[in-house]
Amino acid sequence: MSHSRLLDELITALRCLPGVGPKSAQRAAFHLLERDREGGRRLGEVLAEAMARIGHCKRCRTLSEADLCAICADSGRDQSVLCAVENPIDATAIEASTGFRGTYFVLMGRLSPLDGIGPDELGLSELQQRLGEEPIEELIIATNLTVEGEATARYLSEMAAAAGVGASRIAHGVPLGSELEYIDSSTLAHAFAGRQRVRD
Amino acid sequence: MSHSRLLDELITALRCLPGVGPKSAQRAAFHLLERDREGGRRLGEVLAEAMARIGHCKRCRTLSEADLCAICADSGRDQSVLCAVENPIDATAIEASTGFRGTYFVLMGRLSPLDGIGPDELGLSELQQRLGEEPIEELIIATNLTVEGEATARYLSEMAAAAGVGASRIAHGVPLGSELEYIDSSTLAHAFAGRQRVRD
Repeated sequence: MSHSRLLDELITALRCLPGVGPKSAQRAAFHLLERDREGGRRLGEVLAEAMARIGHCKRCRTLSEADLCAICADSGRDQSVLCAVENPIDATAIEASTGFRGTYFVLMGRLSPLDGIGPDELGLSELQQRLGEEPIEELIIATNLTVEGEATARYLSEMAAAAGVGASRIAHGVPLGSELEYIDSSTLAHAFAGRQRVRD
Repeated sequence: MSHSRLLDELITALRCLPGVGPKSAQRAAFHLLERDREGGRRLGEVLAEAMARIGHCKRCRTLSEADLCAICADSGRDQSVLCAVENPIDATAIEASTGFRGTYFVLMGRLSPLDGIGPDELGLSELQQRLGEEPIEELIIATNLTVEGEATARYLSEMAAAAGVGASRIAHGVPLGSELEYIDSSTLAHAFAGRQRVRD
């Protein structure tokens, strides 16, 4: 409790942010009020607009304020390669790190029956339709290497096979720059089992 | 860069929060959009209102949307004891942890000539006036135990002496529950020098 009702409301409202507890909410509120009112005003405006206007791209399901996201609307992208990812952050990471010029399908989650997330929640019937109707030659499966991400990958690869579309899975193994002795054993086992022949 | 201009704007705007870098801004934006739109909407509203309406209490200088903050407006508070703190968070901490029923004077900073923060920036002439005119019997100086906080404390105690008001400084020493061997040496030296006679 502080000296002002509105300040208490601001501190409470800031706690909707992930990882923000009572202390950091307080610190953030004072920081904005004392040192960055313009930033706070701007954040308020953008939040209101974003919460009201951002929906999902009709084609790839990612977050977008337009019917089609910028990538789906870009006719220069290669329509023969489709990359399936769990969420928009993953697509952003692939855009930033790779030269990928195909399109995405954003699952907005992963198969998790215990949480009530099945194929319908991930829009997989739409994906199936696209695999059947569009000239897609490769489905790159870039779900995470977790139990659920792997189950989702298996489901997707079976869908691709049924539609006669080739499927690939991003490589998992030892990250660049790391040393074997510090790698966790599952990753090392994966990298070992997935070893590739050295070209001459 | 993501798939949506508005989403990029939201991620950028979130970075005005202290300690929020590009990755955590992205995570916060997706969290709000996917899992807590209502929280995000509410935060947007409260931010807009708080940035526009919260100013400073005319009497104690703390953050307040009213001319007088709740504590200064409360006639039940003891007007004979005034506690000087560096910022509103410190006042909130004292309210939460102690039974203090007096009033506060919130400096909104500390003397720091190199940063251009002198007595004027801390409203010390107003404090001097209050010490001279009001029936204040004790000024409790609760600035932090830093070089600047101590310099501020010394300045305040001289002001109190000049106005004929008794001044006290909150005790500094070994925190409760801590073990001597792990205490930093300055704190231990402070606690040792500030030892108090045990009552029989």
